[in-house]
Amino acid sequence: MEIKPYVIGLDLGGTNSVFGIVDADANIVATTSLKTKGHQSVEEYVQCCTKALAPLIEQVGGIDKIHGMGIGAPNGNFYTCNIEYAPNLEWKGIVPLARLFSEALGVNVVVTNDANAAAIGEMTYGAAKGMKNFIMITLGTGVGSGVVVNGDLVYGSDGFAGELGHVTVDYSEDARPCGCGNKGCLEAYCSATGVARTAREILSKCNDESELRNIPLENITSKDVSIAASHGDKIACEIYQFTGELLGRTCANFTPFSSPEAYIFFGGLTKAGDLLMNPIKSAYDAHVMKIFKGKAQMLFSKLDDAQAAVLGAAALAWKV
Amino acid sequence: MEIKPYVIGLDLGGTNSVFGIVDADANIVATTSLKTKGHQSVEEYVQCCTKALAPLIEQVGGIDKIHGMGIGAPNGNFYTCNIEYAPNLEWKGIVPLARLFSEALGVNVVVTNDANAAAIGEMTYGAAKGMKNFIMITLGTGVGSGVVVNGDLVYGSDGFAGELGHVTVDYSEDARPCGCGNKGCLEAYCSATGVARTAREILSKCNDESELRNIPLENITSKDVSIAASHGDKIACEIYQFTGELLGRTCANFTPFSSPEAYIFFGGLTKAGDLLMNPIKSAYDAHVMKIFKGKAQMLFSKLDDAQAAVLGAAALAWKV
Repeated sequence: MEIKPYVIGLDLGGTNSVFGIVDADANIVATTSLKTKGHQSVEEYVQCCTKALAPLIEQVGGIDKIHGMGIGAPNGNFYTCNIEYAPNLEWKGIVPLARLFSEALGVNVVVTNDANAAAIGEMTYGAAKGMKNFIMITLGTGVGSGVVVNGDLVYGSDGFAGELGHVTVDYSEDARPCGCGNKGCLEAYCSATGVARTAREILSKCNDESELRNIPLENITSKDVSIAASHGDKIACEIYQFTGELLGRTCANFTPFSSPEAYIFFGGLTKAGDLLMNPIKSAYDAHVMKIFKGKAQMLFSKLDDAQAAVLGAAALAWKV
Repeated sequence: MEIKPYVIGLDLGGTNSVFGIVDADANIVATTSLKTKGHQSVEEYVQCCTKALAPLIEQVGGIDKIHGMGIGAPNGNFYTCNIEYAPNLEWKGIVPLARLFSEALGVNVVVTNDANAAAIGEMTYGAAKGMKNFIMITLGTGVGSGVVVNGDLVYGSDGFAGELGHVTVDYSEDARPCGCGNKGCLEAYCSATGVARTAREILSKCNDESELRNIPLENITSKDVSIAASHGDKIACEIYQFTGELLGRTCANFTPFSSPEAYIFFGGLTKAGDLLMNPIKSAYDAHVMKIFKGKAQMLFSKLDDAQAAVLGAAALAWKV
C-alpha cells in the first residue's frame, strides 16, 4: 500500500480537542483546536472538527495527501476504535468515533486512550526513544498510564489495559472516592484534583501559616498549590511531598509486573519539578524489591504537553 | 536446524529437582528426581543430576536424540540463563546454571523462573491453552507469578518481571516481614508459610475451639490448616477466607495493568478448592474497576503440580 505524506493526530481531552497534521519526520506542519464540550451530539462535534480541519488539509494538498488519522481519547479502545463509557466526556455509552471521522473525512481512523497515545509519542519522539519496556504515567485532571512491554503498548484482552490510575492505594474505610466508582484509587490522590483535595485536608487539619489560606478552602486548585510551592510555602511543599511519596511507593508496586527501564511522568503536575520528583525517587527506592533497586530511571517527559499526545496519536495513524 | 525428538525439562524447586524427558506431543516419557539441597556446590549438584539423567537419556536413544534442556528455577533469569540471588536456594549470588548443564550434557540449555515455566506449561498444555493474556499465580512455599501479554511471557528490562508475590499489600507498621527483605508482600500472607502464620495469629487472638489447637502453635503448617478445613473446622475456614480475600483484592489491582482474560492459580494451596476460590472471586468482583468487571475468569490449574513446571520448562527447550 502506498504511504501518503501526512497523517492527522487528534488529542481529544475532556476540555480541548487539539489537531495536528504531521509529516513522516514528526513535524507538526499545521495545527488547530476547538472545545470538546458544548456540542449537541458527537455527530455535531465531528462535523465541527471536519470544518476546522478543512483549511489545514487544503494547506498540505488535500485529503489525498493524508495517510490516516489517529486519535487519543479518554477510554479510547484500540481494539474497537470506540470511546467506551468515558466518565469525563459528555457522550455517554459507546461512541463509534473512528467510524464517524472515517465517514466524514474518507480516511482510515484508529483510536487509543490518551495516555497510550502519549506513551507512543514518548517512545517515538521523546524520553523513551529506544526503550522497549517503560511505563508512562500521566498526571493531569486524572491519572492515566501507558504500559510498554517489549516495544509494544499493552492493550490486554479487551483493549483497556494500562489503567494504573485506578489501582487501589488505600483500602481503609475513609479512603477517598474516585470518579470510577471505586474508593482509594491512585487517581484520587495523585491527580490535579487529588492534589487540591490533599491541600484542603492538610489545611483543615493544622493551623500552620500558608499563603493558601488566602484562598477559600473549596476553591483551591493544584495550580494554587504550585504557585505557593514556588514561593517556598511550607504547606504547599508538604502537599507535593505527600503526593510524590504515594506515587513513588505505588510505582514500586508496578515494577514486579513488567520491570520497566523507566517511568516517565507527564502532565500538569510535573511542573512542580524536584518538589515532586525527589519524594517519588526516595519512596520508590525505599519500597521497590531488592532485585529491581537502582534499575528504573524516573524521568519527566521531554515533550511539550500538547505535542506528546498529538504526535502519539499521529504515530498510530501511520499503521492504519 | 534439525529438531531432535526429545527435550529435557527440569523443575528446580527449593526442596526437589524433578526431571522429565518430553516428546513433541508433551508426553513425559521418562522422569526422575533428586533433592536440591545438601550438595557441596552447584557443580556437584549438576554432576549428580547428570548421573541421574544418564539412564533416562540412554532409554530414548542417547544424547543425540535430545534437542535441548529447559529449566524452571527460583530467580531463574531468561535473559542471562543464570539463577540470580535466590533466597530459597543454598547457592548464593549468581549461578551460571545453563552453562554448567550445557557443558555437562552437551546440549543447549535455557533457564526461566519456576512460575514462568508453569505459565508456559499452562499456556501450552493446560487451562490457558489458546489464551493470549493471562496471569499465573503460584501458591507454594512462596508466591510466584508469570504474566502473559499477547501470547508472550513478560520478562521486562532485566528478565525478572513477573514477581507479583512481592507487591506490597500492607503498608502498615506491623506488616509481616517477607523473605525478600521487604515488609507486607503478598507472599508473606498468601503462601503456604503465610497461611501457617495467619493460623498462628488468628488462634492467638481468640479462644474459639479448633482442632488446630491440638498442634503446638509454632508447628502448625498450611497442610494442618487444609486438613482441619476439610473437617469443617471454623477457624481453618476463616484462615482460607482471609487468604482468599487478600488474594482476590490484590488480583483486582493487577487487572488495570494487563487486563488478563484469566487468572490461573496453581500450587499446594489450591487444594483448598472452593474454600479459597469463593473468597478470591467475591473480593475480586468487589474491588476490580468497573470496566473490567465480569471479564477475567478465575481458574485453578488443570495440570498436575509437578507436571506443569516440568512441561513448561520442557516447552522452553524446543526454542533453544
